[in-house]
Parts: sequence; C-alpha cells; structure tokens
Amino acid sequence: MAAKTNPGNFFEDFSLGQVFEHATPRTITDGDIALYTGLYGGRFAVQSSAEFAKSLGYAGQPVDDLLAFHVAFGKTVPEISLNAVANLGYAEGIFGAPVFAGDTIRTTSEVIGLKENSSGKTGVVFVRSVATKQTGETVVDYKRWVMVNKRDASNAAAEAVTPDLKDVVDAADLVLPEGTDFGAYDTTLAGGAERWGDYAIGEKIDHVDGTTVEEAEHMMATRLYQNTAKVHFNQFTQAQGRFGKRLVYGGHVISIARALSFNGLANAFRVAAINAGSHTNPIFAGDTVFAWSEVLDKAECPGRDDVGAIRLRTVATKDHPPADFPHKGDDGKYLPHVVLDLDYWVLMPR
Amino acid sequence: MAAKTNPGNFFEDFSLGQVFEHATPRTITDGDIALYTGLYGGRFAVQSSAEFAKSLGYAGQPVDDLLAFHVAFGKTVPEISLNAVANLGYAEGIFGAPVFAGDTIRTTSEVIGLKENSSGKTGVVFVRSVATKQTGETVVDYKRWVMVNKRDASNAAAEAVTPDLKDVVDAADLVLPEGTDFGAYDTTLAGGAERWGDYAIGEKIDHVDGTTVEEAEHMMATRLYQNTAKVHFNQFTQAQGRFGKRLVYGGHVISIARALSFNGLANAFRVAAINAGSHTNPIFAGDTVFAWSEVLDKAECPGRDDVGAIRLRTVATKDHPPADFPHKGDDGKYLPHVVLDLDYWVLMPR
Amino acid sequence: MAAKTNPGNFFEDFSLGQVFEHATPRTITDGDIALYTGLYGGRFAVQSSAEFAKSLGYAGQPVDDLLAFHVAFGKTVPEISLNAVANLGYAEGIFGAPVFAGDTIRTTSEVIGLKENSSGKTGVVFVRSVATKQTGETVVDYKRWVMVNKRDASNAAAEAVTPDLKDVVDAADLVLPEGTDFGAYDTTLAGGAERWGDYAIGEKIDHVDGTTVEEAEHMMATRLYQNTAKVHFNQFTQAQGRFGKRLVYGGHVISIARALSFNGLANAFRVAAINAGSHTNPIFAGDTVFAWSEVLDKAECPGRDDVGAIRLRTVATKDHPPADFPHKGDDGKYLPHVVLDLDYWVLMPR
Repeated sequence: MAAKTNPGNFFEDFSLGQVFEHATPRTITDGDIALYTGLYGGRFAVQSSAEFAKSLGYAGQPVDDLLAFHVAFGKTVPEISLNAVANLGYAEGIFGAPVFAGDTIRTTSEVIGLKENSSGKTGVVFVRSVATKQTGETVVDYKRWVMVNKRDASNAAAEAVTPDLKDVVDAADLVLPEGTDFGAYDTTLAGGAERWGDYAIGEKIDHVDGTTVEEAEHMMATRLYQNTAKVHFNQFTQAQGRFGKRLVYGGHVISIARALSFNGLANAFRVAAINAGSHTNPIFAGDTVFAWSEVLDKAECPGRDDVGAIRLRTVATKDHPPADFPHKGDDGKYLPHVVLDLDYWVLMPR
Repeated sequence: MAAKTNPGNFFEDFSLGQVFEHATPRTITDGDIALYTGLYGGRFAVQSSAEFAKSLGYAGQPVDDLLAFHVAFGKTVPEISLNAVANLGYAEGIFGAPVFAGDTIRTTSEVIGLKENSSGKTGVVFVRSVATKQTGETVVDYKRWVMVNKRDASNAAAEAVTPDLKDVVDAADLVLPEGTDFGAYDTTLAGGAERWGDYAIGEKIDHVDGTTVEEAEHMMATRLYQNTAKVHFNQFTQAQGRFGKRLVYGGHVISIARALSFNGLANAFRVAAINAGSHTNPIFAGDTVFAWSEVLDKAECPGRDDVGAIRLRTVATKDHPPADFPHKGDDGKYLPHVVLDLDYWVLMPR
Repeated sequence: MAAKTNPGNFFEDFSLGQVFEHATPRTITDGDIALYTGLYGGRFAVQSSAEFAKSLGYAGQPVDDLLAFHVAFGKTVPEISLNAVANLGYAEGIFGAPVFAGDTIRTTSEVIGLKENSSGKTGVVFVRSVATKQTGETVVDYKRWVMVNKRDASNAAAEAVTPDLKDVVDAADLVLPEGTDFGAYDTTLAGGAERWGDYAIGEKIDHVDGTTVEEAEHMMATRLYQNTAKVHFNQFTQAQGRFGKRLVYGGHVISIARALSFNGLANAFRVAAINAGSHTNPIFAGDTVFAWSEVLDKAECPGRDDVGAIRLRTVATKDHPPADFPHKGDDGKYLPHVVLDLDYWVLMPR
C-alpha cells in the first residue's frame, strides 16, 4: 500500500498553470463569528450587529473579512505550503461578495510563477487563489508567494517565470457590497466620529492598546481556519527546531492588528483589498501585540458618494508600544520589534 | 489632525444627567451561547435545552442572564470606565425580557451621581445603564459606581450628588419571563430535586467544586463581551504595574461562581436581580475559584404560584475550598481569599 | 436542611437494573460545531460543509459523531462516575441517527453489571447508556464500566454480575445515515483519494502530525460537554494529588486522535461504532499527542454498495512520533508513551 498521508508538494512538483482544487469546503456559521469575536474582540458595528448591518442594506451582519480570508487561505496549505520555508508576500488581494453565516467557502489555486533560488535547495512558488461561495460568487481573489523546499537539490528546475504583480490594487477595482447605502450610518453607535473625510494622507495613528498572545488562542484560531501548517501546533517537534517553540500563524497577527485598529479607525467597516503584506518577524505565545497605522492614500469609489476608500499601512509590533511608529531602520530592514507590515484598502462612510 | 483614539472620560468630563449612547450594538447568537458554555460549563436546563425551555413556555432556550449582562456592561466601558481605578459596586440591577439567539443588545447610560474624593485626584461616578434589545424591551437596567481618575487634580469638581440607592430590589419588582408556566418543570431533567420551598433563610451551601482560571479563557470571555478594559489583555504593560500580571474581569468570576452554584442550586433557573456586588480581591490566571451561597431571603412572586424568588449571597474564594463559609474578618474587612460578594435574586420553581 | 450538593453515587448505591434519567438535556448548535472545530481542527468534509453533506443526501452537515458522544457521555458523570477511580472500558457503542444543529440530546443509563474488587474498597459498575434526541431517535447506545469507590469497605457487596459484552460490534449492526447516497462523493473536495477498497487489513498508517494540549483547551472542551468530573478543572486540589496537575478528559484525546487521523483516513466520514477503548496512560497539558492506526477488518454494508465499513485500531501517543507504531511491550502491557487504544468502525465511500 502506498502512503496515504499527505507529504505536500515540493518545488519540483509545481508547474506553471497547474490548478489545485483545494479540499474541505467549509460552511461558516454564527458559531465561527462568535469564536472569532472571542479570539479578537472586534467591535466594528457592521460585523457585530445584524440590526446595524440591515439598516445599511445588508441581508444580515457579514462575517469579518479576515475570518473569510483565513478560511480561504487555510484550504491552500495542504497543496501549496505544507513544505514552505516562508510565506513571502501577498498581492492583488480583492475581497468580493460579503460572506454571511450559512455560506460555504471553497478555494482553488493556480500556479502563476516559479523561480528556483540560487542555492538550488528551494524555490519560490507564486499562486493565485480564488475562494468562492456556494452561489459561485467570489469571496476573495489574491496572489501569494512562498518559498518551498525542493525534494532534491539536484533536480532540474523549470524555467523561471515571475508574474507581474501590481504594487497596489486600483481603487476602481474595489468591490462595494451590493445593495448597501451608508447614508444612514450612525457613527455614535459605531463608536467613532471620524468619517472618510476626516483622514489625511500621511496621517499616523497609534492604536494604543495591546494584547498578549496565548498558545490556546492562536492554536484555536488556526484550527478554526482548518490551517494545518505544522509549526503552529506541535511543541514536541518545535522544541527541537530553530525557535524552540510554536510559531503563531501570521494571519492571527493580522486579525489582532485589525481588531486593535478599531481604536482610531472605528468606521473602517470593510477590508476591501490587500495590496501587500509581510510577516517581518515571528510571534510567539507570551508576546504582546500592538499596532499603528498610516494613511497611504485615499480614493473615491466610482458611483458611490456614501463610501470612500482609504489605503492604510498597518504595522504590528511585539512588546513595543508604537507611539514612535516603528517600521524600518536606517539600513532599510524592518526593526526587530516589527512583526507585520500590511498595506491594504478599507472602506469608510463619507 | 486631532487624535482619533478614544482617551476615555476623566472625572471632570462627567456631568449630572449626562447621557451616553454606547457603541457597538451586538447580536447574540448560538455561537455566543456555545462559547459561554465552553468557558463556564453551565448546566441550568432552561438555558441548555431548547426543548426544556419550550416545555415551560419559552420561545426557545434563553441566553444565560449573565452573558447578556456582560455584553450590556462591556458596551459602557469606553465612556464610563476606561480611566477607572476601581469598579466600586452595583445596585438595583433588574433583568427584564429574556434574550434569545438573534437578539441585538445596545446600552445607554446616564450619570446619576458624582462625588470627588478628598484626595482631589479621583472621583466617584454613579451611572444608571439600561440595555435594550431591538424590540425596545429592556434586557437589564442597573446602577454601578466607579472610581475614575481626574485629568488634573487642580480642576474644580462639580457639586457632589450621591444617588439614593436601594439596598435590595423589591421582590415585587422582579420581572418574570412572560408566557411561561413552570408547572411542568422536571427536576430530574434539571439535575436537582430541591424547589423554592426546600430552601430556608439562613441556610448556607458549599458548592464544593473549584475551577482554575486560565489567561486564554478570561481573555476570550472578556473579548466575547467586547469589554476593552486594558488591564485584562496587556501583559507587557501589566508587568510594569502593581500586580505584575493581567487582572481577570470581575464579571468572569461572577459567571464562574454562578456555574459552580449549580451544585446546590440546580433549579435557580434565572438571575432576576443584582442587589449589590463587590469584587473584594483581584483574581489572576492560575487561581482556583470556589463558591458558597447563603439564602438571605425568600419571596413569593405576585400572581405566580409556580415560581418563587430567593435572595442569595454568593461568595467566591480563591485557592480556598469554602466549607468554612469565609466572608469577613473580625475587623469587618473581607478575608484575603474572598474575591466576590454578590447579593442577588434568583427565580426557582415552587 | 439536608445537603443539596450532589455527593455522587458510591459502589453500594448501585443496583442491578437501576435506571438513571440523567440531567441537563442539551441542544447542540452551530456554536458547538464551531468551538469543536476550533478545539480539534477537524477537516472531514461531511461535517465541515453543509453543501457537501447535502450533495450526499444529508439534511445539512451533521455534527461530529464524537461531539455527540462526549455530550451524551458528559450527562452520565453526575450519577455514574463522580466517585470513579478509573474509566475502565467501552464496548458495544453504536452510533445511530446523525445529529444536526438544533437537536437536543439527553441520556439514560441502566446498571447492567456490578462486581466488587477483592480489596473491598472499590467495585466495578457496568452501565448501558443510551442518548436520544427530541425525535426519540437513538444518537448513541454504548456500554462502559468504571471503577467506583465504596463509601465504606465494610459494607456488604451485591452479588457479582458481569455482563456478556461483545468484543466487536457486528458490521451488520452498524447504522447507515438514512437517505444518503455516496455515489457522488467527491474525493478531491474531501481531501483524500483513498476509498474503502484502497485499505487492506493489517495496514498501518502513521498520521504524522502532532498537537500539543493546553489547559484552556481541554477545560473548554470538557465544559462544552458539560462533563463535571472534578479532576479536569481544579488545580488547587489536583496539586495535592497523585499527579500534581489536572488530568485531561480521555474523550479529549479521542477527539484529537480522530482529527489527526484525517491525514491518512480523509474519507472515514463517520464513526459508526466503538468496539473497545482504553485510556492507557494519563495526558496532561503540555503533552504533544500523535496517532497511528491499523486496519483491523473490513466489511460490506448490507444493502449498500456506495459505502463500506473499516474496523480500525487508533493508538494515540504522547511526546512520541509513532512511526514505529508503538502499542504494547513484550510484557503485554501498554508502552508508557501510549495514551489511547481505540477499536472502532468507520464508514467510508466505496
């Protein structure tokens, strides 16, 4: 009998244009929403209250965009990144139809680039992953690239193809939730007075609050997303590795930073796109995560005068309150306390 | 650009009669019920079983009263207690309509008293907070008072006004769940033989069981309630403070004590009112919580011969099995192992 | 007033044929499913996706069989095993109707055997427990036996009666989910290519992955099941006991092993029966659990050519990757790293 366990793909196993239909479709429910709230404490009113969401034209409260993203992402791990050395970056991530409790998500990926590293031991795999729901609507469509081990350094590599990726999603490509009208948006109930017009390009915001990561929390989150990357769960094996401990899933840090950003960005009701993202240093249980944001750009949304887009850089730090807005050092490298650098578009009422 | 983060209110910012419409309405779902069960392990049959609840006339299983209370309370933190030094007390808390999955809760508060402390550095703020659901029905209506820092000790204080608060909610003011009839209440299925008539004033019950608090649990609970008080989450900052560690939300201890009280009070199917409550000593992760109760009073419920009210004092301890019913020392001060002293009314079938 | 807390039953309190109608009926919801996913990370497609389940004829995604089992089991603790020294074994466990969100579970038990131990201090109680849902359908019907303390060693024991228990449930007695047809089962979406015909008797599978147990997780799981066994929750008391720490509920380990077994048994969509099970060594927080399985037998399912049954032995280990398939030593005793030996039937598409 051949081995029945999944060994994952190595660099040589990937080919340009290859398509993976990832396993385990996942129905998102009110239960996922509650556990996500317990894990991050999000307070964005659109996601928290069915009544608030309905007053804006939603069918009910939509699921947090990042919860949908993590579920969509988790499905790609068994084929794309089980043998990954590092998750190198994200680009061109566009969120589509809002997800509601009862929707079922599945993900497919296509290999859009391959590039062996000079060592011959690893290579970079670029994929476009598209998550859809049972209606066929796209939930999120994004590119990422990961460094993957080769099975054997002596194996010949495919011709290098590096995809052309945009630095920033065009604001015109952002998807606004259909049927909504934010004219009646209540900033008092939402918990923050500032609207789209109140933010200026270049403005920096210290989100002030910090939250300490626990092993039970990051593992429960990562399992909720059915993300099976081994480094997050297995202390026995990790104890013998480079860090000696379990690594926290980078997406967990993104969700923490997003929840912290409420304090200063209370009306950023939707993550509309991910332009770029880097997990710049590892996070472990016991670390306290803080965040600050910078307004990189602003854009109007075609055909909508009730909502505008804001391009943000949100930087998360560990054990370092970010009143000094830490980012990169004089050498151009990320400072050691910086754990996340995320460039994304949010939507905000005008 | 002005700071967009919430600095909270200081004592000078409050004025008598001031009303706060608190942010982030919250839809309670089956997911919250499940996570609450995972956190506390409650076994009260009315809240555990839709079938059991329906057999008594409920539309379905109601949400645990304290879950609704914690959510209602959490909303008040950003305006009332972000700069609080201490949560001094509760009074006149009356639970109204039962909450069901799908209901959305919001809270408003009114300042009903203000009293500067002699130090000039802090003052006591008294508020009445009312949580309602989307139907307009009241979920819980209660008073609390907190000690809040002044921004500047040299600022003049408003005239002192101390509200007149009842020591005990009148039994006649308790709200019985509409449309219910406990005639068919099944004590075997509920897990305890004793009914209202089986309890005597002055009787003390050791609830025997203990449960150890974990960081992941109290933080998940407190985030589930969208309670943002900083002392619960941020080990980096707490490490530099008085205790060196994160403080557990007092409401978490109330819910633990309530769940433990099932062993001896299995048919106390509803918390109907909170007469008074004190968090007498801090609780930290690693502490094991126990509880005991004393029957302070009993009352009939006007117009109902199927249900009666019992006034209880439930005392929680840490690392101290309470067979000796610890409470206050000879000096009238709470013993060091006592962490909660809660005076409340429950309803019980007759 | 007599004590109102539950002292549990001692060996002398049990009599042959005695029936217990256990307390606290429990409505299972989407919330329980989500928390269960967060705790174990299960990826079996039938339980994960409403769409996938419906494509096979289910009304929606069924609840994980073991979640239903743990809830059913938890109800028996107050009467059967509150004073248990050890949970000795399971037999003849047959899973009946699938459970869906909204179903309410209750459990009754009958004493089917009693046998005092030679020490006179303890005895073995054999019970048959049947969990049903509100429709009257059986959810799970199983036998277990536990060693229970006597109240007083000098008390006379009842005549010893040991029930005749089958070593293995007959494949013909397995219950197939009504109205289902696995002809359209999609192995790609399910995440594993192997079907019933691809497994051979005697084949062993190392499930490779490991997961580290946390206090917060096993306590949340055990409370979710409303299982009140004291040894899992109370560090203050456990610190003074034999192990000095909290014991993990054996069922938590069963669920971990089942989730790990996805890697190699991805299409084992249902636990159909438990033939035998032993918790061979204790598990504590901090231990990393691994699992391996052996195919003990295979059977066709009468009247169904779309589904077959596979009898498995799944062995869980702690802090020991099981590539060497550890089980018993030359002395016939379980190896010290082996924590679970579970003999059960699963169903798999043909």
